[in-house]
Amino acid sequence: MVLGVDVGGTNIRLAVVNAQGDIGERTSQRAELSQLAGENAAQHVLDTLSDAILPLLEKHPQISVIGIGFPGFFDNKTGRMIASPNIPGLRDFALTDALQEKLHLPVHVQNDASLAALGEFRFGAVQGLNSLLHLTLGTGIGGGLILDGKMYGGDGGIAMEIGHMHIAPEGRICGCGNTGCLETYASATAVSKGYFEQSGKRLNAREICLLAEQGDQLALTILEEAGHYLGRAIAETVKLLDVRHVSISGGLSQAWPLLFPALSQALEEHLIPPLRGQIHVRHSALNDDAGILGAASLALAHSSE
Amino acid sequence: MVLGVDVGGTNIRLAVVNAQGDIGERTSQRAELSQLAGENAAQHVLDTLSDAILPLLEKHPQISVIGIGFPGFFDNKTGRMIASPNIPGLRDFALTDALQEKLHLPVHVQNDASLAALGEFRFGAVQGLNSLLHLTLGTGIGGGLILDGKMYGGDGGIAMEIGHMHIAPEGRICGCGNTGCLETYASATAVSKGYFEQSGKRLNAREICLLAEQGDQLALTILEEAGHYLGRAIAETVKLLDVRHVSISGGLSQAWPLLFPALSQALEEHLIPPLRGQIHVRHSALNDDAGILGAASLALAHSSE
Repeated sequence: MVLGVDVGGTNIRLAVVNAQGDIGERTSQRAELSQLAGENAAQHVLDTLSDAILPLLEKHPQISVIGIGFPGFFDNKTGRMIASPNIPGLRDFALTDALQEKLHLPVHVQNDASLAALGEFRFGAVQGLNSLLHLTLGTGIGGGLILDGKMYGGDGGIAMEIGHMHIAPEGRICGCGNTGCLETYASATAVSKGYFEQSGKRLNAREICLLAEQGDQLALTILEEAGHYLGRAIAETVKLLDVRHVSISGGLSQAWPLLFPALSQALEEHLIPPLRGQIHVRHSALNDDAGILGAASLALAHSSE
Repeated sequence: MVLGVDVGGTNIRLAVVNAQGDIGERTSQRAELSQLAGENAAQHVLDTLSDAILPLLEKHPQISVIGIGFPGFFDNKTGRMIASPNIPGLRDFALTDALQEKLHLPVHVQNDASLAALGEFRFGAVQGLNSLLHLTLGTGIGGGLILDGKMYGGDGGIAMEIGHMHIAPEGRICGCGNTGCLETYASATAVSKGYFEQSGKRLNAREICLLAEQGDQLALTILEEAGHYLGRAIAETVKLLDVRHVSISGGLSQAWPLLFPALSQALEEHLIPPLRGQIHVRHSALNDDAGILGAASLALAHSSE
C-alpha cells in the first residue's frame, strides 16, 4: 500500500492506492498554498501537508511509501525542489527530507504535471506505450512527458512548459509576462475568463462545457477556439518530439466531443506529411485521478527498494 | 580506427577517425542522391556509397567499423530506415544489412542531423553536458537532440523537425506543404532565395554572409530576420525540453557575429522567467565536421563490441 498525494493551488487530494492502481480511501482538503511568500512559506507548506497526510497514515498502517505531486521544478537527480512558480516563498527547498523527518516514512516528491503523465502512462486507457504527452487543462496548462517509459524533466526540471508556447501573435497577455501563450486560450481559467468578458456571466469551465453541450453559441465558439490552439500546440510539440500518443485531462476536457473536432483539424493541418494520421489524442480516462495515481506510481516504484 | 561518413543531398564526405576524434585522411565525392525514385533507388544508393567507401577501406585496413549519417528516418531499435524524405525511392530499406554484405565490415547508419548533434556533443567546444540541441542551417534546417547523453529519435525516428516549426503566421510556402515554417526564413537556401528575390543576384549563403560583413544592407536585414526566427524557435523548443545548451553549424552560421544579436534578443524575449539567461547558444566549433565526427562516434561506440 502507498499513499498518493496531488497538491493543487487550492486543494490537496489524497488516496490510498495498491500495487494494481486501485484507489481505496480518499480524502481532499482545501489549502491556499499559492502566493505564499517569505520565510514562513516552507513551514506552512510542511504543516499543511503533514496535517492532511497524518490521519491517513494512522488509519492505514500498511502504507509504506508516500508519493507527492507538487507544483514546482525539481532537480532530476537529487529530487530537491528548485522553485515553485506559484509559491514564491519556496526556493531551493528540501521538501522531501523535511517531510520524511516529520512523517517517519519514505517520501518522494515530483512535479505535479509530470506525475499526472506518469499516472496516465501506467494506469490509463492504453497500456504498453513507449512515450506519452499528457496535458492537464486547469488554472494553467500542465504538461508532462514520458519518454521511453520515464518522466522527462529536462536539465533543470522545467520541461514541458507547453502552456507558455507562443501560439497567437499579438495575443492575450499571460502571467509569465509574454503575450499569446497557449494557456491564455486553452486553460480552464482562460475559457472562464473569455466567457465572462463576452457575456458578463462568471462561470467555471465545467459549467461552460455544460452550456456548450446545450447549444450555447458563445460557449461553443470559445471551446472551439481552445481546441484549435490545443491542436496547433500539439502539432508543434510532436514535430519536435515525435511522440505518437497524447492524453488530456482537466475540467475543460469534460466537453471532449465539442473540443476534439477543432483540435484534430488544427493538429492535422500543422503536421508534416509523415506524421499525419499518426498522432493519437484522447481524453484521459482517469481525468482528475491521473495526478494521484502518478504520485502513487512514484511511491510504488520505490516501495520495493 | 573507424570511418565516418556524412551523406548529404549533393555530397558524400568521408574521414578516417581515431578514438580521440582526430581526423586523418578525408575524401569528398559529389553524388546526386536526392529525388531518386523507383526500384533502382536503393541499388543506386548502395553503389554510390560503396564506391566512395571502398578505396578508403583498401588504403586503411585498420578501419574496423563504419558509421554513416544519412538523411532519413530510422527505427530507434532495429536501425532500419523507415523513409528518406528527399529520396522517395527508399522506403523500409535495410541499408545497414545491404552495406555490411558489400563491405564485409560492421556498418551503423543513423539520421544525419542526429549524428551531427552527437559529433558536437562528443567532440565540440563544451564537454560533459547532459543534453544538447544542435541545428544545421543548410538546404533545410537539420535538428538533432541529445538527451541524457543519448541521441533522441522519438517513437518513429522523426523527432526534431524544428525546420518545420510554424513560426510566421501568413508566412512563406514550405516544401512540406505548410506555410511559415522556420526553414523558409533561416536555412541557407531561404537566405539565398530571399536575397535573390530582392536584388536579382544569385548568391549562396556564404557569399551573403561575406557581403553582410562588408556592410551590405540587404544581406544584413536578411541575416537579422533569420537570427530573429531562430531565436524564437529555440525559445519554443527549450520551453518544451529545458535543454540548456544549443549549438549551430552550417553555411549560414559563418556570419555568427551578425546572426547572434537578433537570435539572442528574440530568444530571451520569448522565454519564461526561470529560463531567462540560462540558455547557452553557440556557434559550432566543428562546423562542417560535426556530421562526420558524429558518424565516427557512432562507429566508435560499436568498435569495442
